[in-house]
Amino acid sequence: MLKPHLESIRWVGNESGELQLLDQRILPDREEYLSCKSLPSLIEAIQTLAVRGAPLIGVAAAYGVVLAARSGSFKKNCQSLIQSRPTAVNLRWAVERVVQAAGGDPASSLREARLIHREDLELCDRMGVFGKTVVPPKANVMTICNTGALATAGIGTAFAVFLHAKAPHVYALETRPRCQGARLTMYELKKAGISSTLLCDGAAASVMRDRKIDLVITGADRVAANGDAANKIGTYMLAVLAKEHGIPFYVAAPYSTFDLNLDSGKDIPIEQRDADEVLKPLGLSGIQVLNLAFDVTPAKYIRAFITDRGIVKPPFTKSLRQFIGKRRAGSGERAAV
Amino acid sequence: MLKPHLESIRWVGNESGELQLLDQRILPDREEYLSCKSLPSLIEAIQTLAVRGAPLIGVAAAYGVVLAARSGSFKKNCQSLIQSRPTAVNLRWAVERVVQAAGGDPASSLREARLIHREDLELCDRMGVFGKTVVPPKANVMTICNTGALATAGIGTAFAVFLHAKAPHVYALETRPRCQGARLTMYELKKAGISSTLLCDGAAASVMRDRKIDLVITGADRVAANGDAANKIGTYMLAVLAKEHGIPFYVAAPYSTFDLNLDSGKDIPIEQRDADEVLKPLGLSGIQVLNLAFDVTPAKYIRAFITDRGIVKPPFTKSLRQFIGKRRAGSGERAAV
Repeated sequence: MLKPHLESIRWVGNESGELQLLDQRILPDREEYLSCKSLPSLIEAIQTLAVRGAPLIGVAAAYGVVLAARSGSFKKNCQSLIQSRPTAVNLRWAVERVVQAAGGDPASSLREARLIHREDLELCDRMGVFGKTVVPPKANVMTICNTGALATAGIGTAFAVFLHAKAPHVYALETRPRCQGARLTMYELKKAGISSTLLCDGAAASVMRDRKIDLVITGADRVAANGDAANKIGTYMLAVLAKEHGIPFYVAAPYSTFDLNLDSGKDIPIEQRDADEVLKPLGLSGIQVLNLAFDVTPAKYIRAFITDRGIVKPPFTKSLRQFIGKRRAGSGERAAV
Repeated sequence: MLKPHLESIRWVGNESGELQLLDQRILPDREEYLSCKSLPSLIEAIQTLAVRGAPLIGVAAAYGVVLAARSGSFKKNCQSLIQSRPTAVNLRWAVERVVQAAGGDPASSLREARLIHREDLELCDRMGVFGKTVVPPKANVMTICNTGALATAGIGTAFAVFLHAKAPHVYALETRPRCQGARLTMYELKKAGISSTLLCDGAAASVMRDRKIDLVITGADRVAANGDAANKIGTYMLAVLAKEHGIPFYVAAPYSTFDLNLDSGKDIPIEQRDADEVLKPLGLSGIQVLNLAFDVTPAKYIRAFITDRGIVKPPFTKSLRQFIGKRRAGSGERAAV
């Protein structure tokens, strides 16, 4: 199993200990850990993107249940945690799983969170192992946002595939407004020794046409039962462009990102973030901005899902049920949390 | 004729005078004029994008011939001016026209430059008058980069259409890396009292799908005889996305942007700019970047050209010859400059 090239998350101590997150707001300038000793500090870290990436948010939220169990109303705390960001389903999934397993006991919650954490490491590696089978040697791969050790507790989702593939060259979109591609993915690619080129988001189309791009692989924040996939804003753009240029488009995600309770992507809540996130880096203000954090790529654009359980091909309504399972465990617990 | 809402360029004095450019590098923070008294200062202004936009670069270059005629080798000076940026054909067109008319005499050069300047004001207005016929009332229009009074000496190319249309709402892409959409177009839209929303470039696809976008209008830097159009990076992306969503895609450009000497877009030189242009605003360095300043949109994606001579529809090889003329005057002069 390939080990992650950096540690994005760790719990220090017993159930009275603290959660430490590699602060992604200041990368790649500084590698500093943010200490979360209470639930509000974790929720703030999630909302300001100190920690991000659907699977990593899931692991952080699992540890968050330990914090939630230490003070205040447990039920209310868990609700606040679940509602801290709306799109990535891993958040709800992780909280529900820990609650179901530990019922509000801090020590048992920590045990279950550590289990989810270790499991995520394995899920990532398996995505890499399955995913490499769809990547030709020396492939030019295009991707968006960050899907690596900073988006998971392991080696990543799409990034796990880059690590397992044979000498790929990765074209990374910078991914405005937060530029996770430029700041985080390029930093990870360098650490991992993978050759890479950074592009502005608007350059994806002409690079697909004028350079040989073999495939696109992205991550996901939530996938519905029919295969519609929510991911970072710009992913749907990539899917349309890939189709136009005859380039296969893959989505890599662990089973915990699939939300088979939703029939289609229409039901996935899309987070709209503050205008300042777009304007402040440009030194601008007072401008009307539509800052959508995610978009939904319809299933018809997706060649296959690269999951920890194998390559899942269309028709997705059938194949996802087969690979991922009918209704997720924990889904019945929503009302109880 | 609608008057421009700001003055992007002016020549002050007689042929011994100076060119003044509204410095677009510091807009919208400060409205300051940059004074160009010599050719090197103008060339620097062009290369650093203090002045930009194909038609405006043309007008600036026309005045540049006056500076070129004042000291040093005239022929060499004109070559340097023409080569200061490769993609927009208006630059070469304007220099050749002034040289042909004035043959290196500063006073005559200034007369011809002033003629080109005045003419550009009229061309812009005419694009607006023709263009408004393709825009339904209260239309949602998507655009990229800046095509307004800061891209021309008049009211713009695509922007002229926004001004003449009935109550449009403009969705402007920010247009990384220089963010002319966020910095310049939003500033002009506000000045002109046009309702508008800023988007990150990667959001174009989902906004086309999820909001009602009636049409896309962009500018151009050079159009070949078959209708292939070079414009700001991201334009080709918009064209593909518009096709996928059944949205008509228009290109607005004056006759001086058409280069009928080129058979197709393959022959248009695409400027590649420094990595720092992408990285510096993010506080990053030492990263491999492919920073293409332009892309080429194949003719098949373009519903029609909005020109100062009318709406030009396919087949473009025939219609452009009809509307724009066979070989441009001045094209035979290339060797002479």
